[in-house]
Amino acid sequence: MASVLNIDLEPRVGCIASAMSVLGNKWTALILRDLMSGPKGFCELMRSVGNINPRTLSQRLDTLEKQNIILGQDGHYQLTDKGDDLLPILKQMAAWGTKYPQD
Amino acid sequence: MASVLNIDLEPRVGCIASAMSVLGNKWTALILRDLMSGPKGFCELMRSVGNINPRTLSQRLDTLEKQNIILGQDGHYQLTDKGDDLLPILKQMAAWGTKYPQD
Repeated sequence: MASVLNIDLEPRVGCIASAMSVLGNKWTALILRDLMSGPKGFCELMRSVGNINPRTLSQRLDTLEKQNIILGQDGHYQLTDKGDDLLPILKQMAAWGTKYPQD
Repeated sequence: MASVLNIDLEPRVGCIASAMSVLGNKWTALILRDLMSGPKGFCELMRSVGNINPRTLSQRLDTLEKQNIILGQDGHYQLTDKGDDLLPILKQMAAWGTKYPQD
């Protein structure tokens, strides 16, 4: 019974884990949020993400490039189609976080 | 310009971070996935989540209880309304992970 419903939610085993391997980090989610509005330079991201140190930002950007989520060129970063497709997840997260603000 | 689009995506600053504070962990996402189909006992969750050790599962369940995402009673766990409302996020994650399987 449970498995029927789970197949509904997760058509392929591992597909939620797959999304978490990209998004499973607060900074990563915030970097993607900020790239959703268009390409940005490193320093622009530093400002928009807020409170992130350059080393962490640099590491996250590297990881996102390796995962083909973003494309980095001349110190500017933009989403690939694969990264752009994360938008509906972030939108649902924003809707949930609006309904249940962090205590 | 960028900020206009970000306000669109994130109506309240911190609401994506808010969702990440709950979901920002692969195990947590998988536990929630499995509770979406109904209340489960500890050992049922051990089996359905897969490859999680009891100590980790126990820690995650404690955290989720403190966040009012799940309710634990007599060794059985179920989603609260707040937890149930995470379903659309998990659905979008499943859709994305189906389109982009992990390499």
